[in-house]
Amino acid sequence: MRCFFDPRQLGHSPAKELHNGSFVDYAETPARAAAILKTIGAFEAPDDHGEAPILAIHDADYVDFLKTAPARWAEAGRPGDVMGYIWPIARRRAVKLDRIDALAGRYSLDASTPLTAESWSSAYWSTQSVLAATHAVLAGDRSAFALCRPPGHHAGADYLGGYCYLNTAAIAAQAALDSGAKRVAILDIDYHHGNGTQDIFWTRGDVFYASVHADPATDYPFFWGHADETGEDAGAGTTLNLPLPQGATLEAFRAAQASALAAIASFEPDLLVLSFGADTWEEDPISQFRLTTGDYAVLAREIAACGWPTVIAMEGGYAIDALGANVASLLEGFV
Amino acid sequence: MRCFFDPRQLGHSPAKELHNGSFVDYAETPARAAAILKTIGAFEAPDDHGEAPILAIHDADYVDFLKTAPARWAEAGRPGDVMGYIWPIARRRAVKLDRIDALAGRYSLDASTPLTAESWSSAYWSTQSVLAATHAVLAGDRSAFALCRPPGHHAGADYLGGYCYLNTAAIAAQAALDSGAKRVAILDIDYHHGNGTQDIFWTRGDVFYASVHADPATDYPFFWGHADETGEDAGAGTTLNLPLPQGATLEAFRAAQASALAAIASFEPDLLVLSFGADTWEEDPISQFRLTTGDYAVLAREIAACGWPTVIAMEGGYAIDALGANVASLLEGFV
Repeated sequence: MRCFFDPRQLGHSPAKELHNGSFVDYAETPARAAAILKTIGAFEAPDDHGEAPILAIHDADYVDFLKTAPARWAEAGRPGDVMGYIWPIARRRAVKLDRIDALAGRYSLDASTPLTAESWSSAYWSTQSVLAATHAVLAGDRSAFALCRPPGHHAGADYLGGYCYLNTAAIAAQAALDSGAKRVAILDIDYHHGNGTQDIFWTRGDVFYASVHADPATDYPFFWGHADETGEDAGAGTTLNLPLPQGATLEAFRAAQASALAAIASFEPDLLVLSFGADTWEEDPISQFRLTTGDYAVLAREIAACGWPTVIAMEGGYAIDALGANVASLLEGFV
Repeated sequence: MRCFFDPRQLGHSPAKELHNGSFVDYAETPARAAAILKTIGAFEAPDDHGEAPILAIHDADYVDFLKTAPARWAEAGRPGDVMGYIWPIARRRAVKLDRIDALAGRYSLDASTPLTAESWSSAYWSTQSVLAATHAVLAGDRSAFALCRPPGHHAGADYLGGYCYLNTAAIAAQAALDSGAKRVAILDIDYHHGNGTQDIFWTRGDVFYASVHADPATDYPFFWGHADETGEDAGAGTTLNLPLPQGATLEAFRAAQASALAAIASFEPDLLVLSFGADTWEEDPISQFRLTTGDYAVLAREIAACGWPTVIAMEGGYAIDALGANVASLLEGFV
């Protein structure tokens, strides 16, 4: 299987995040990608498909914010990385905002995802990696892997959050549609619900979003990913959320994934994007499922058996020492 | 003029707030109230009107959160004061949330307003002070002053923010309506827009909300307080926002206040609630207007000249050494 990664994805390295009441070290470190690179070995650098595929998903003003915010933050005399402190929770609408602190809140959903001067470059090349994998699959490969880092599934059309800046899975799905696919499905098996991906395709009928994740009643992102969220308008019925309780093992996860695959099969996609997080692993430091390394090969074989050309996009996973083996197990299941 | 305050309002004292990218000392300190008490002298302790007037404005589940969150936070092993880190910015709706971190985000709009074990008591007695002032005015006094601390105007029906937990001005207005007033106006002359007060009465025709404040394009709360926000449904036209640029002096402020008073006069209120912040003062450490101490008496005389029975509720003001004199100047203008 072809694997894609660009070294510029390592530049992004925020210092601290607000998490459970404390400023703690940022969990989504460059060491995560380094661990996967070390285990998997041969990665190709992606071609540069430019900004158009990004702007097909993200608002232009948001993209401009990602590029310019670190410089504006420094100009305003702010120390450290860009981070908001107030959020537009009621009657969110387009208003003219001048202050960088206002923009930081406007374009984010949490205080856990700081922007640094290197964030745009790393996020940009993360999307180029997933675009390269998408084009490999569109050209006939059964599957391809993009080591997306930073990850993508919490980022909406106009907001960052949950360590995500650009929604790699959504950009891949849209690129496939723009290259002739009629219907694309996204299966998200990260521990956390992919609220950004869901939000982007909420009212669209050409992309099916199915997610197996920790119940948002107890786990981030809390406000999204509940079972009664199924899409609206043209997207009514094309969102499927399968939340599981903390402590879930392969048995429960596999059953939920089987439900997701059955629903996706009914949708008859031309291509599948798999948002893969290894934070479902039994010893992940910030998550509470109980999958083993070998379980990822089991889950992958069941996805591969469906026969859809599959783009695999890396999402979360924070147990760095096990990350390479967990990704290797998943990829083994596809080949 | 009768003045109301309860010593329990001093208990609330969060340690730190997230502000412009750093954790800094909390600006809304007990020393603020102490400075006003020292200058003004004779305060009466308010009677206890119970929770009913609070629940006439705030959601019961939000009030329950304010009371129970500090204990739940400690039970979850969280250090320090209660503070959220993710906010429901898109498709905000009622969902079942178990985790204290989720609730902290659900019931707040910023990361600048921590909850401590004493916050509920202080906020409760802050509302009792404004209720005592309201009943003094309803009983025939021309005006009365409530030293509300914590302040109130950023708090919505179901969220805290901007150092505010319970919306004292809204609770006063509702208590007046429930005691027979047909129409109540709220004039907000704090430096910051009173987004919570606006939000609470957004669709109601029995309360007119007028605010003179720093342009939200450049100042907190950024997302609300723009001139084109005028209310909806039965409240269409009963919200008036008069943003001013940073650096405004008495001339500009007085002209804006005159516009607000003219609009309120057309509304023919039975009673006025004045949300007064002294953070419009020329040397306030977190604000950028240029009013002098003597200016508050000028503004007060022009309000008093309208002849409406007036409840004065303290909001912001962070130049502690000048706070007593600034409040004294305002009260002088009313007598």
